[in-house]
Amino acid sequence: MWAFVTDFFTYETTKSVLVKSWSVGIVNRIVQLLIVIYFIGYVFLYEKAYQETDTGVESSVMTKVKGFGYQSNQVLDVADYVYPPQGAGVFCIITKVIVTDNQTRGRCEEVSSPYLDCANHTECQAFYGNNLANGAVTGRCLKALNASKGKCEIQGWCPAEDVRLSREPMVDVNNFTIFIKNSIRFPVFDVTRGNFPEHMTSKEIKRCTYHPVRSPLCPIFRVRDILNYTGQDVHALANKGGEIGINIEWKCNLDWDEEFCKPVYSFSRLDAPFAKNPVSQGYNFRFARYYKKDDGMDYRTLVKAHAIRFDILVTGNAGKFSTIPTLINMVAAFTSIGLGTVLCDIILLNFMKGADQYKAKKFEEVSEAQIEASLSHSQVSQLSLKPETKNLCDSGAVSLSNDLAL
Amino acid sequence: MWAFVTDFFTYETTKSVLVKSWSVGIVNRIVQLLIVIYFIGYVFLYEKAYQETDTGVESSVMTKVKGFGYQSNQVLDVADYVYPPQGAGVFCIITKVIVTDNQTRGRCEEVSSPYLDCANHTECQAFYGNNLANGAVTGRCLKALNASKGKCEIQGWCPAEDVRLSREPMVDVNNFTIFIKNSIRFPVFDVTRGNFPEHMTSKEIKRCTYHPVRSPLCPIFRVRDILNYTGQDVHALANKGGEIGINIEWKCNLDWDEEFCKPVYSFSRLDAPFAKNPVSQGYNFRFARYYKKDDGMDYRTLVKAHAIRFDILVTGNAGKFSTIPTLINMVAAFTSIGLGTVLCDIILLNFMKGADQYKAKKFEEVSEAQIEASLSHSQVSQLSLKPETKNLCDSGAVSLSNDLAL
Amino acid sequence: MWAFVTDFFTYETTKSVLVKSWSVGIVNRIVQLLIVIYFIGYVFLYEKAYQETDTGVESSVMTKVKGFGYQSNQVLDVADYVYPPQGAGVFCIITKVIVTDNQTRGRCEEVSSPYLDCANHTECQAFYGNNLANGAVTGRCLKALNASKGKCEIQGWCPAEDVRLSREPMVDVNNFTIFIKNSIRFPVFDVTRGNFPEHMTSKEIKRCTYHPVRSPLCPIFRVRDILNYTGQDVHALANKGGEIGINIEWKCNLDWDEEFCKPVYSFSRLDAPFAKNPVSQGYNFRFARYYKKDDGMDYRTLVKAHAIRFDILVTGNAGKFSTIPTLINMVAAFTSIGLGTVLCDIILLNFMKGADQYKAKKFEEVSEAQIEASLSHSQVSQLSLKPETKNLCDSGAVSLSNDLAL
Repeated sequence: MWAFVTDFFTYETTKSVLVKSWSVGIVNRIVQLLIVIYFIGYVFLYEKAYQETDTGVESSVMTKVKGFGYQSNQVLDVADYVYPPQGAGVFCIITKVIVTDNQTRGRCEEVSSPYLDCANHTECQAFYGNNLANGAVTGRCLKALNASKGKCEIQGWCPAEDVRLSREPMVDVNNFTIFIKNSIRFPVFDVTRGNFPEHMTSKEIKRCTYHPVRSPLCPIFRVRDILNYTGQDVHALANKGGEIGINIEWKCNLDWDEEFCKPVYSFSRLDAPFAKNPVSQGYNFRFARYYKKDDGMDYRTLVKAHAIRFDILVTGNAGKFSTIPTLINMVAAFTSIGLGTVLCDIILLNFMKGADQYKAKKFEEVSEAQIEASLSHSQVSQLSLKPETKNLCDSGAVSLSNDLAL
Repeated sequence: MWAFVTDFFTYETTKSVLVKSWSVGIVNRIVQLLIVIYFIGYVFLYEKAYQETDTGVESSVMTKVKGFGYQSNQVLDVADYVYPPQGAGVFCIITKVIVTDNQTRGRCEEVSSPYLDCANHTECQAFYGNNLANGAVTGRCLKALNASKGKCEIQGWCPAEDVRLSREPMVDVNNFTIFIKNSIRFPVFDVTRGNFPEHMTSKEIKRCTYHPVRSPLCPIFRVRDILNYTGQDVHALANKGGEIGINIEWKCNLDWDEEFCKPVYSFSRLDAPFAKNPVSQGYNFRFARYYKKDDGMDYRTLVKAHAIRFDILVTGNAGKFSTIPTLINMVAAFTSIGLGTVLCDIILLNFMKGADQYKAKKFEEVSEAQIEASLSHSQVSQLSLKPETKNLCDSGAVSLSNDLAL
Repeated sequence: MWAFVTDFFTYETTKSVLVKSWSVGIVNRIVQLLIVIYFIGYVFLYEKAYQETDTGVESSVMTKVKGFGYQSNQVLDVADYVYPPQGAGVFCIITKVIVTDNQTRGRCEEVSSPYLDCANHTECQAFYGNNLANGAVTGRCLKALNASKGKCEIQGWCPAEDVRLSREPMVDVNNFTIFIKNSIRFPVFDVTRGNFPEHMTSKEIKRCTYHPVRSPLCPIFRVRDILNYTGQDVHALANKGGEIGINIEWKCNLDWDEEFCKPVYSFSRLDAPFAKNPVSQGYNFRFARYYKKDDGMDYRTLVKAHAIRFDILVTGNAGKFSTIPTLINMVAAFTSIGLGTVLCDIILLNFMKGADQYKAKKFEEVSEAQIEASLSHSQVSQLSLKPETKNLCDSGAVSLSNDLAL
């Protein structure tokens, strides 16, 4: 029992060989220095391994567009061209519209060409279930008297949309401004931040415009600038529509004052991967405004809207000193310093003058043969312990000399 | 000073025992082999530990629904049944409506049964502040002459919505198609991808329909197929409404060509956890269309819409070779190879024939008693170094023999 | 060849020194105990390092608001004050409106003061391109006869919005209820959960109201309670508008039954960082309702809506036992136990009585001089191996004695 306790509190440490050699010693210290530099420079300072990080940023975005656009001599305001109107993080500025007024339910001929051209009813019946027309195909071919070609009849809202009635794109979008209010929260540290400083006055905000260098914290963005940063042409974009991403990135080191936790803005064209593809370029959608005549009859105005969609994408992470990751990484650093021995052992035991002598010093050899020999010996001389250990010692010396002889 | 420098450049390496034993040697190599296989096979090849990963995929989704539905002999088009219309990543296809036309502000009796049945005013006053009626309860009971039962009066938009006036669900939703344009970006690697190949022509896209095997990259999805993949019945879904998730998963290995970075689609019913619950099955919402009479009086059409809501959920991660994680994991691999010794030491020192002999070789023992003895001895013979070391050597031998005697 | 094979299956283990010292032994075991406690208590039990985790929760939210509000003696229902109506995870309850009826396209004078006050046309021309007016500035100054001051003319929708026509805020929002249906999925484990228990009956749900202690799983939230939890005043909020976050947090330990995977709700004011800033407090947006006269003339009602926006933010992670992380962390634990020796070696070799003796035991010294000496010696007596090893042995003893002499 007592033996077990004393055994338990025995301390085991490795036996080491100290090699007093300049070359290996210097290599060893240089390797250790490199490892220390890597840990201090990269792991601790650059990667901030002493910090606990929070990547699950909670974000809330409010936007407000300002500006007036001209289209067919009419002035359009925010309520006309921004959809959806509630100032969310994703919104569209409608730049070009194809308006089909006074649609009522009924039957009429398809307009858009070359779809649904027909010479007889049979040709139209082939289009049953066609999703690309402006209404459900009835299977009848509507032809002017004596004409050889006609258009298939559709059922739905009539008259059908005519792409040729497209209005001019509203390039005044260039002068519009977007005000972005973004508040974020890092739930792990319970830190909340807004995208413009508290001390910014109403006057300052109303006068400023975002500029990456001159006013990187102004929350008002001119559309012209955004398009410039992304290298887009306003005429092409207003004509076809498109998607622009406004990325707000929060990288916060909360070991400093919260005041230094500021947003960084970047801009990109989100539908860029489809730019080269002839299919479905740009961005458009259809919506309708419903009206009622006094007699209760429904009619509507169908609008096909080409729009620039703005997506405010908020990403972020925050870090703050924490004991646990610091401890873990310090332990990792200390154990890694020992890794220099791997390289130095290779040098010492292979490439140094007298490598075999170093090997003899570092390695003690014991073979099964010796053990068996000593076992049989010990069974003979159980009472005399001293000779046995001497024997062991001798055999060790022998094995060393053998090793040197190799 | 010089002694300090030479000491500093001393190289310390562990002294090792080489055991020339087949059994332990083979076990050792097998354990090392397993560790190497684990690191190469699992950590490096399967988990791709040599890669830096980016999990913060930025995504932008555009959708477009096509198709015509019939309801009460009327043809409905996209502008009628898709809400919200702007083609966002979350949209509803309205499949069943309860329309209450010509509502004006005023007072009238509640319609829906069995709520708000009453025999007298007192009973109605108990419903003050009830949120489930179609308007604010006024506290009056409206009864036909001589009737024993009536309905409480409400204030708000009249007449109240009558669930019995529900229209037939539009099962044509089955034939609708959803076109999904999804562009993603991995900000760490600045890689942008679209969900269909650049070389796909307009014609190909218009003709194809998504199929997991035959055309896994076609961006056009037939609603019928989506419902099939999720095991849903169109009649039940169109009647009650529901939520369908279209998951687009991007798992990209950017060590290969970007062309191989393709989306994988999967489909699920999002409100499945509530399927068994009798409460609030399906999905519906109310909205109103506002009209004005020529005299300026407001009236509205209230619509309770049961809808299938589609949520496009985009997830993804990308990996690319990076030196830092590769180095870290290689170091981890090399140090882990040494772990085989733990197991082998246990075998060698406990289960091998001659374990005690191996112990004697591996361990050198030193006890406080010896140290104290040598200390008192050294104080006596400070000048004679040789005997002292001999003494140490002897004590070592003694301790070894003691150990063997245990 | 055979020598290579036998060499390959040689097992190398470190030679150790067993120190039979109570003080160091106890320190060693205490350090090891602390490391074991850290790993079992913190890493395994608290941090659940034996689990694979899934942080990419997929979520789908459906909301439904109920309640009636009074404004200027009119009763407002859900279709009037909730925007957008489709019951998404982000929605607004409109609490205060500034309604500008019967706007038609044309020219008129700006209303809002002090903007665009003018004495002559030149002053107005300075405002060209001003985005803060209610329309595009034409550059003309409209003055009453003989008046010294006037207002600039604008082109757009007339009459211009007049802030003074603001209606009373609807404080009845306090009594509204919000029903939240949230279903989530952990894709890695394919686990789907809903935010209220399956066995909850329709009756229970209709009667309950969320309370953090009494009914933490009731999916119906009274706006009054939400405002209380966030410390907001309904009058201020209804007047200016604001953003309220409802955070649903799912932290699931899937080693237990899925039934224990429940949501936890928390509430916060999202635009809190802007509370102290005089600029753009609250939350408002503008939208228009378009009407048509029988003669086809468009007119609209412009609404500036102050609203409380509710953002349902869903976060979550799930963990489940997995062999790989368990193995990795157990290996890390076992190797870390050895770290106690670093501390103990420092104590043993520096602060213990007889530290030099311990050093002598732990370290064997070999210097380049010795190696060179033995090399030259061995070149002389290549045939006699025994003396050589003796020499080595002696030099070892010498170095030890030197070390002791330091």
